[in-house]
Amino acid sequence: MPRVALDAMGGDLAPGAPIAAALLALQELGPEHQIQLVGRESVIRDELTVQLAAAPAFLVEAATRFEIIDAPDVIEMTDKPSIAIRGKPKSSMAVGIRLQVEGRSDAFVSAGNSGAQMAASTFILRLHEGLSRPAIGTIFPTSKQPIVVLDSGANVDCSPAELVQFARLGHVYARDVLGRPNPAVGLLSIGEEAEKGNAAVKEAHQLLLQASLNFIGNIEGRDIPNGDCDRGPIDVVVCDGFTGNVLLKFYEAVAPMLFGMMMKAGLTKEQLGSVVHSLNYEKYGGAPLLGVKGVSIICHGKSSPEALKNGIIAAIRAVESRMSQHIEEQLSS
Amino acid sequence: MPRVALDAMGGDLAPGAPIAAALLALQELGPEHQIQLVGRESVIRDELTVQLAAAPAFLVEAATRFEIIDAPDVIEMTDKPSIAIRGKPKSSMAVGIRLQVEGRSDAFVSAGNSGAQMAASTFILRLHEGLSRPAIGTIFPTSKQPIVVLDSGANVDCSPAELVQFARLGHVYARDVLGRPNPAVGLLSIGEEAEKGNAAVKEAHQLLLQASLNFIGNIEGRDIPNGDCDRGPIDVVVCDGFTGNVLLKFYEAVAPMLFGMMMKAGLTKEQLGSVVHSLNYEKYGGAPLLGVKGVSIICHGKSSPEALKNGIIAAIRAVESRMSQHIEEQLSS
Repeated sequence: MPRVALDAMGGDLAPGAPIAAALLALQELGPEHQIQLVGRESVIRDELTVQLAAAPAFLVEAATRFEIIDAPDVIEMTDKPSIAIRGKPKSSMAVGIRLQVEGRSDAFVSAGNSGAQMAASTFILRLHEGLSRPAIGTIFPTSKQPIVVLDSGANVDCSPAELVQFARLGHVYARDVLGRPNPAVGLLSIGEEAEKGNAAVKEAHQLLLQASLNFIGNIEGRDIPNGDCDRGPIDVVVCDGFTGNVLLKFYEAVAPMLFGMMMKAGLTKEQLGSVVHSLNYEKYGGAPLLGVKGVSIICHGKSSPEALKNGIIAAIRAVESRMSQHIEEQLSS
Repeated sequence: MPRVALDAMGGDLAPGAPIAAALLALQELGPEHQIQLVGRESVIRDELTVQLAAAPAFLVEAATRFEIIDAPDVIEMTDKPSIAIRGKPKSSMAVGIRLQVEGRSDAFVSAGNSGAQMAASTFILRLHEGLSRPAIGTIFPTSKQPIVVLDSGANVDCSPAELVQFARLGHVYARDVLGRPNPAVGLLSIGEEAEKGNAAVKEAHQLLLQASLNFIGNIEGRDIPNGDCDRGPIDVVVCDGFTGNVLLKFYEAVAPMLFGMMMKAGLTKEQLGSVVHSLNYEKYGGAPLLGVKGVSIICHGKSSPEALKNGIIAAIRAVESRMSQHIEEQLSS
């Protein structure tokens, strides 16, 4: 019976999008799932009233199952990451994450200030033993199966040991949430050979050969769009958060750019439809901050209700698969 | 009267593709341009005979203008980079590059072993004063103007000062070869703000603020496909060679992947035609190794005759614009 706390104040479209996402989730999930709306109680109640005004009776009834958790402070997108810890301890973010420590919730989902979410999650939930940093695991659509790329932005300068930690985190995430029985882990580099790469990558390669993971060696940028390399399909791509973040933002922009060029060239939205759909980031909802003792899902600031709803679903999958416990076991193995 | 030495033995498709490229260039260039074919003389003559067998008379006549420069050694794609310097001093690469030092040629173009080409170019031509490393400047097509990304693979671990050197090299290349009067130079990072990025990037940002370049600040992965950011169009993207190489290979693979998905979805090659064409890497031919005293153009190992011909054209543009001299001036300014 997973309980998911949703940040009702987070994101460019809050509180509208989070409340709409919660209502979408209600319709998709059974009554055994509990959604907790965290934020200014009056704002949440007002927004619910507006959105339910035109809703069917069953949904109005179902919405009474929401637990509303008051959090008077609001973190702005421009606030510094430390704000959630020091400046605004009663923010929806700090309150929502703390619920897990108090045993009152199982997961937290937010489209708010992601730096603040990382800081608050790490500070409040704490990291599993054996980790020096958490990592953001982002799903990249490919022409075949989706793959996990991590770190995609939490850490800019990474040591070889940290890259190995990311590999372990990605292994559990791919297994538990994406359902890959024995995830193939590739190390992003500039050549297949073990001696190719920057200093951290070359050393990480050697460490990964010793790790009890399905390490398939170095992969290159070209292998990501296809989701495979000459050694077979890829499930997890390990890289530092600088490279991962550059690549993620590049990928998010390159498909719309190509579609834009094609529409200029006379193709219609309908003609491009199925491809646009299969590359739609909204399907994947959010990216977990992996390594914290609990579940914290980071959603894009511009997340639509659909994307946030999928963030809630991803949170539930992480809770039900006991991902955090498995990460603890993986790190101590 | 630029003289361009072409490596007749370099690349997966040699000697066929280089010889075909030279013949294409002959037809496009005036008689004031001299193409020098470097490689095993007998191989070059045999290949020329074959390719000219069915050629029109004017081309057979024009081909007599080729200068053939014998180089008995051949560098394999699997040879180590140092081979061109130590192991095979009479390779087409070493001989072809040395022509510039001897005052017998103005540029070198090859689709051969790029590690060997970098090593030989740096060793034989030497670097301009003030540089610690050369950089590969690769052209990325965007939905607007093409942009230069450098370094795209010559250097994996880069210091802040080296990133600034790349900015200077890119500035001259964009001005001289792409014709941008005052190139806008962006620093690739994970956020617009000066304090975003890894350690090297943050320090490079501060150094670039002092440099007399049109530095537009940090840009992000998302800005590359569109060729601009909120501060206007981008001409040059500065990054370390690890990030640049990952991005380049990712980009080279993502467009074909999308086109493949679209053709599966029922679109035809003709429908995608103009977009495929405008993203075609062959148009840009090759990437200069910037910073050496001379001109050395690195082409993809799989380069078609068309791509190699465009490499020759790029070499001529670099020679005619006096790019190498301008780099020297830029570095001493």
